Amino acid sequence: MMETAARLKRLGTETAFAVSAEANAFRDAGNRVYPFHLGDMNLPTPENIMEAAIRAMKGGKTGYCPTMGIPELRGAIAEDINRSHGTHYKMENVAIQPGGKPVIGKFILALMEPGDEVLYPNPGYPIYESQIEFNGGVAVPYSYREGDGDFAIDLDALERSITARTRILILNDLHNPTGAEASPRERERIAEIAREHDLKLLLDEAYFDIRYEGRSVSLASLEGMEERSVILFAFSKRFAMTGWRIGAAVGPKHVADAIGKLNVNDESCSNHFVQYGALEGLRGGPGGTQRIVEELRRRRDRCVERLNEIPGVRCFTPKATFYLFPNVTEAMERTGLLEYEDFRRTLLRETGVSFCTRLHFGRPLPGEKERYIRFAYSGIELADIEDGLHRFKEFIVRRSSRSPKSVSSRATASP
Amino acid sequence: MMETAARLKRLGTETAFAVSAEANAFRDAGNRVYPFHLGDMNLPTPENIMEAAIRAMKGGKTGYCPTMGIPELRGAIAEDINRSHGTHYKMENVAIQPGGKPVIGKFILALMEPGDEVLYPNPGYPIYESQIEFNGGVAVPYSYREGDGDFAIDLDALERSITARTRILILNDLHNPTGAEASPRERERIAEIAREHDLKLLLDEAYFDIRYEGRSVSLASLEGMEERSVILFAFSKRFAMTGWRIGAAVGPKHVADAIGKLNVNDESCSNHFVQYGALEGLRGGPGGTQRIVEELRRRRDRCVERLNEIPGVRCFTPKATFYLFPNVTEAMERTGLLEYEDFRRTLLRETGVSFCTRLHFGRPLPGEKERYIRFAYSGIELADIEDGLHRFKEFIVRRSSRSPKSVSSRATASP
Repeated sequence: MMETAARLKRLGTETAFAVSAEANAFRDAGNRVYPFHLGDMNLPTPENIMEAAIRAMKGGKTGYCPTMGIPELRGAIAEDINRSHGTHYKMENVAIQPGGKPVIGKFILALMEPGDEVLYPNPGYPIYESQIEFNGGVAVPYSYREGDGDFAIDLDALERSITARTRILILNDLHNPTGAEASPRERERIAEIAREHDLKLLLDEAYFDIRYEGRSVSLASLEGMEERSVILFAFSKRFAMTGWRIGAAVGPKHVADAIGKLNVNDESCSNHFVQYGALEGLRGGPGGTQRIVEELRRRRDRCVERLNEIPGVRCFTPKATFYLFPNVTEAMERTGLLEYEDFRRTLLRETGVSFCTRLHFGRPLPGEKERYIRFAYSGIELADIEDGLHRFKEFIVRRSSRSPKSVSSRATASP
Repeated sequence: MMETAARLKRLGTETAFAVSAEANAFRDAGNRVYPFHLGDMNLPTPENIMEAAIRAMKGGKTGYCPTMGIPELRGAIAEDINRSHGTHYKMENVAIQPGGKPVIGKFILALMEPGDEVLYPNPGYPIYESQIEFNGGVAVPYSYREGDGDFAIDLDALERSITARTRILILNDLHNPTGAEASPRERERIAEIAREHDLKLLLDEAYFDIRYEGRSVSLASLEGMEERSVILFAFSKRFAMTGWRIGAAVGPKHVADAIGKLNVNDESCSNHFVQYGALEGLRGGPGGTQRIVEELRRRRDRCVERLNEIPGVRCFTPKATFYLFPNVTEAMERTGLLEYEDFRRTLLRETGVSFCTRLHFGRPLPGEKERYIRFAYSGIELADIEDGLHRFKEFIVRRSSRSPKSVSSRATASP
């Protein structure tokens, strides 16, 4: 048997896929499942994007294209970002990728030395931690704290964790899983920290355009940030194109070039005709995204309303992303299911409601007492939201009356 | 300015892309170019494949799919390989990739330890050397020698270069750039070497189905080889799908799983609807590939015939791939252009004929005396083959009479 390399032991994964597999197995066994677990979308890609990709395919855009992408798309992404960010990117700053996710690994490979300490959000997208450690870096978590109507980065703690080896900060403003957004004052302070400690920044802006009120502001818009940032630019959420696998790394030209050299080594180029679909997304007007956001808004509102009707569940209304991160500390206590995985699996089994928990977004930090689960409403219809959360509520009520003593007990940290 | 990581210094590239850029610049300046330089194809993807992908796209296959690919495609690839190889693969052995190329890096990451010595072909596809060294391995070249009507691996030299640290052998039978194919006896000997030294094998079979007579045989078909091999399976050439970016790693289940975990970290999954196009390629009968191979055969025959009419050029007729690796030692001497890059650039400038040289396929080895250039005929029409090679011939004849003395001089190794 061929022995695999030791480095794989440092490689993490998205444990959310395991939740998905469990939910699918439960469904295949003949049960009804309410899928709140995955950040996929059950909305169609806008018609004009599909038609543009098909035209390109039939028009012969089936051979290789340049490793950094077709010039028109690179230019259109630069313009699109400049419009919302006030930045000064050109085509040369853009390296097309087969999805937004590849930007994470390539950013790390291009800018992190082994032994560098990298600040990353926890709870957060688990691939940050995985790619940092796989490539020999030291993953240093910073956390989010629940406030009144929003989560906020614990900036004091973040600043205390900076050492002489800290080189990189990963920011996922409009945040998965919390739905959090930095305030202008928080952004200003993060920019100060970046300047003071000369940090390189990965700005994961996958959810930048999934926004229900106000407008998104990028850290790259602040003084001096553009030259120290790489933006993870994604089409997946904005145009319901998750399965198309198209995105881009946008940053200083020498970094984009380094990432382009990684492209040559890894995948040659991204799918050629898909890039024409993405281009149509940027050029075809805001209608497609507006329709997606309107539908997501209806789901968000219904979801938040119903979650807050469940005893022991507390959930505010995020202005962006399609995630909710309800506090379920008391609900877990009421049910006597004090371990995350018990709570999640019992709910799946008894109600069909499938979701991720805090455990799927990084290793829990010392001293964490509050309990959170993550609901994604991008892949579930309004009627199923109603139905599923009704079952969720009934389950909590039923279990509360069954184990009344548990209400006063306190959940202990899960491993 | 953000400093890039030191590891990038170990990263190579495909210098063939630079040739392409030069050719395009020359064309954009108003000149006629005869593109023999790149392994891209100017043939259309078969209609049934395009229609299947479009049906899947319109049918909503636009969201994420499993990280290792849709089960139907994984199963169809296993069956396809079993049919030609006599192997015993199942769905579980197949990890879908966004192209054949990603298999190279992921194989190295999954199976090579830093410090391992890896035997790789030189001349050969330059990404092997790049990925080995980027990931901390020691790239140990083995070479091909020109014989009567074929190139053959110098197996004696290969065996001499094996040490206690040798762990992996990369084989690209049906070889880019030489078009070489191992004889049954050579295959048997490679298998013996693999057994004796317990080597892991990457079998790059990108050109397995681009074949003009006889049938391709994989090393994986030999006794004991299946369990020590990972096959790089590609759709790009077989179905003229280079720009679609779809392929697979096929090997022992635990290795496929390790590569799947790399998928989760790198790109989540490959394009969803493209996989239905690829599936149709495998299920829709051999007609599409046959038409591609027939056209390529006409080009091969014309190309070989015309090349052999050029004074100082010697080229045999490969039975597979779409590459020719003519010996131009004497032609270079006749022209007095004794450095590869001088010869290549002068020919582009004076004739518009664009090609790669031996230099684009790895660092030249000590003692190399013969000179070779690589002609790809996958991206150029018959009429342009005629026209371009006529100009090539005229150039050689013209330059021969101009610098008669150079005929007797001997080319020295280029850096």
